[in-house]
Amino acid sequence: MPKIKKVQNSLTIMTEMIMPNDTNALGNLMGGNLLRMMDVVGAICAQKHSNRIVVTASVDNVSFKKAIPLGYVITLEAQVTRSFNSSMEVMVNVFSENIPAGTKENTNNAFLTFVAVDQSGRPIEVPELSPEGKEETELFEGALRRRQLRLVLAGRMKPNEATELQALFKT
Amino acid sequence: MPKIKKVQNSLTIMTEMIMPNDTNALGNLMGGNLLRMMDVVGAICAQKHSNRIVVTASVDNVSFKKAIPLGYVITLEAQVTRSFNSSMEVMVNVFSENIPAGTKENTNNAFLTFVAVDQSGRPIEVPELSPEGKEETELFEGALRRRQLRLVLAGRMKPNEATELQALFKT
Amino acid sequence: MPKIKKVQNSLTIMTEMIMPNDTNALGNLMGGNLLRMMDVVGAICAQKHSNRIVVTASVDNVSFKKAIPLGYVITLEAQVTRSFNSSMEVMVNVFSENIPAGTKENTNNAFLTFVAVDQSGRPIEVPELSPEGKEETELFEGALRRRQLRLVLAGRMKPNEATELQALFKT
Amino acid sequence: MPKIKKVQNSLTIMTEMIMPNDTNALGNLMGGNLLRMMDVVGAICAQKHSNRIVVTASVDNVSFKKAIPLGYVITLEAQVTRSFNSSMEVMVNVFSENIPAGTKENTNNAFLTFVAVDQSGRPIEVPELSPEGKEETELFEGALRRRQLRLVLAGRMKPNEATELQALFKT
Amino acid sequence: MPKIKKVQNSLTIMTEMIMPNDTNALGNLMGGNLLRMMDVVGAICAQKHSNRIVVTASVDNVSFKKAIPLGYVITLEAQVTRSFNSSMEVMVNVFSENIPAGTKENTNNAFLTFVAVDQSGRPIEVPELSPEGKEETELFEGALRRRQLRLVLAGRMKPNEATELQALFKT
Amino acid sequence: MPKIKKVQNSLTIMTEMIMPNDTNALGNLMGGNLLRMMDVVGAICAQKHSNRIVVTASVDNVSFKKAIPLGYVITLEAQVTRSFNSSMEVMVNVFSENIPAGTKENTNNAFLTFVAVDQSGRPIEVPELSPEGKEETELFEGALRRRQLRLVLAGRMKPNEATELQALFKT
Repeated sequence: MPKIKKVQNSLTIMTEMIMPNDTNALGNLMGGNLLRMMDVVGAICAQKHSNRIVVTASVDNVSFKKAIPLGYVITLEAQVTRSFNSSMEVMVNVFSENIPAGTKENTNNAFLTFVAVDQSGRPIEVPELSPEGKEETELFEGALRRRQLRLVLAGRMKPNEATELQALFKT
Repeated sequence: MPKIKKVQNSLTIMTEMIMPNDTNALGNLMGGNLLRMMDVVGAICAQKHSNRIVVTASVDNVSFKKAIPLGYVITLEAQVTRSFNSSMEVMVNVFSENIPAGTKENTNNAFLTFVAVDQSGRPIEVPELSPEGKEETELFEGALRRRQLRLVLAGRMKPNEATELQALFKT
Repeated sequence: MPKIKKVQNSLTIMTEMIMPNDTNALGNLMGGNLLRMMDVVGAICAQKHSNRIVVTASVDNVSFKKAIPLGYVITLEAQVTRSFNSSMEVMVNVFSENIPAGTKENTNNAFLTFVAVDQSGRPIEVPELSPEGKEETELFEGALRRRQLRLVLAGRMKPNEATELQALFKT
Repeated sequence: MPKIKKVQNSLTIMTEMIMPNDTNALGNLMGGNLLRMMDVVGAICAQKHSNRIVVTASVDNVSFKKAIPLGYVITLEAQVTRSFNSSMEVMVNVFSENIPAGTKENTNNAFLTFVAVDQSGRPIEVPELSPEGKEETELFEGALRRRQLRLVLAGRMKPNEATELQALFKT
Repeated sequence: MPKIKKVQNSLTIMTEMIMPNDTNALGNLMGGNLLRMMDVVGAICAQKHSNRIVVTASVDNVSFKKAIPLGYVITLEAQVTRSFNSSMEVMVNVFSENIPAGTKENTNNAFLTFVAVDQSGRPIEVPELSPEGKEETELFEGALRRRQLRLVLAGRMKPNEATELQALFKT
Repeated sequence: MPKIKKVQNSLTIMTEMIMPNDTNALGNLMGGNLLRMMDVVGAICAQKHSNRIVVTASVDNVSFKKAIPLGYVITLEAQVTRSFNSSMEVMVNVFSENIPAGTKENTNNAFLTFVAVDQSGRPIEVPELSPEGKEETELFEGALRRRQLRLVLAGRMKPNEATELQALFKT
């Protein structure tokens, strides 16, 4: 397997139609079902980057801004933004489409991290990501800051050691 | 409906057995399926607090520390930690139990926010929460800080206006 | 494992929201789906009492008095009422809640029996149950009568040998 | 619609293959999933007899004698045994088949009752059943006794009024 | 196992009720869900004929003439029409029933082929089919023509070698 | 809506991971489940082309050449090949990927037709397709021949009127 991979090598697209059982009492997609789909598409993307079985390590803050009604089509696009030893950060963008009305909008975006494991479930090294162009590079660089936030929130890094985050909050 | 409610009034417990279709290639619960269960138990809890239909507004950072294998029993406990006008923050704790081995551990904990809505989906006011004892009071107070983090991450508050968060990152 | 256990040690609570696929043509929970949930919560409860894998041995007469519509929340509470060598009788109570209306009622109650088995599926001894208080004691004592009825209905006991039942039907 | 119908008019056969998600930790069909299938086939049978929407009123004692492993084929046969005003008793027989081994056995049999309802859920009269031959007649006559047992168990008939049952328990 | 079997020996009937999650935005059964049911009933039928595990080899052209709404009952009848070494052609007929209206019609019919395999997935010989009566004989003979069409469409036979088909298209 | 559309405008990609409940007794994807996925991705593609609700009209012969095991990732790509008044022919290509092994192959390809309908289910006109390049043009032209075959197989066209097909079978 190559030691360095591009974003394009593992880009993953999943299209789904909102079915009755995916919806809540108002007839809209339940948040938890969208999270499940994000996890599946993110895991496939991380598998493609690492050529390994992967397990979900964390999901960053996800906000649900817009209701997605029964019968809408949603497209989930997943791309690796950076890898760290055995873990990969994956960004998932969700687009919701009312096809008869001809409208489409970006309703959610989230960052998930996955760990590549061997058959006994032990972490194993993954290829580095080589970003291309401005957008991929910004996502690559922002990954450090998001990682510090995850470590602080999980209680595995002290806030005053999170140098990337501190810069953000200094007045 | 009462204008003030206690944590106890909406405490919700969900017990599930890990079934084959909930698992990944290693035979462990997929992260996305756990997120879906967290969303359901959290929504029921927020419904009980508000006596309204609720929709998921956000899920905070969730990390997955331990694999939960097929056949394990999981218990999800949801409690409201604070309410803000029409929204409620709910904490969900997940316990994973290997019953034949007699072991049980707290594998995940997450904060979700739900918005109470009327039949046309418009936000509607919810009762206040009156915390009791030290633990409930700490969760109640921490809710302000977590809310600022959500607003900053969603781009709806500038980091330098997040006074609760700044205190955290000042050296 | 202890040789005697209390009801409290294995009490199990399951909360579920009625989803579209759980309902029939009138938009109410199908009886068969409620039976499936009763079996799952009862099995988890029997697992907790025995610390073993369990299999369903029988379900006693269940009657469905009230329709439970889409969007209602149901709570299933399971408790062991008595154990016999390798089998356990479990009582499951179902509460149906219309949360926006603030109403809750006990819609069903059923007795299921489970058998504890080892990895090859052979029955294996379980702890005794030590009932506490009036209600638990009555359930414990009634278990003998319900067991005779099960044996008679399964053709494994002659009606005239069912001494506990005969007392009931004598004028 | 005719006022009298035969058993043959509503006989219903359902064949299913045991899928991974139907099974428990030992790889056998979970009792609760079999109950759900029995309810569906019974409801279709009662619909055919009454030409109405039906709701489940009760399930009599069901015992699970034999494990049914993943990959087995099960056949459920449902027939109306008797009707009472708006309700129908349906007998469901379950046959489990290990096709590669060429073996087939009758693993379960149960009696369910269904009530025919109109569009607003109100009970509505159903055709009478006209039994033919010895077996159908015995089932038709036994229905009275099973009905008394259901009423006694549901607390809606006193044991000493259950004349059909008393005969059974007198020595 | 016998070397020759009759149609009757493997006839398989499956009855299903259309549930919410089976339907599309118009509330009718989705074509893909009907195809899945046809595959299951056909596979069970082929298993019964061969007493083997079977895998789907192909599905012939299926057309969907009539919408089947939520709440309708469908009956799928599968019969083996001919066997070839390790493969079997199975015909599946679908009947759709609006029970309250008392109407029933034959909405679909399809031919599927299955291959019997051993535990390692290798093709294995199956019993011959001995057709009885005019209808079974016509299906048995037509199987040759349908088989040539399959081979031509799969690019495994040249159109000018498909002698059975040529007869059909000659003016 | 535009009166002429390109293939690119409605291209639809769906990625799925094979889950336990999708598989048969050999641990491979069941044919029927793949057909259901093909129907969903094809329907979304036809919706995008027509900006309408669509219903499945037919599925052409599909053959299953290769087993797709549990844990594999499949990618379904759907494109409109031609439209006729209110119907559209859609080609679905299925790629199966063993990610840890780094292998990917085109396992299935099928043609489905969908009809665009209004809210009451009546057929309604759809945009024409304007093919670009050699491959799209060949698919566009072949659509006529496949359509005649569908009509002949459905008994709605006599073989001797199927001019496009006759050319194929003449020696």
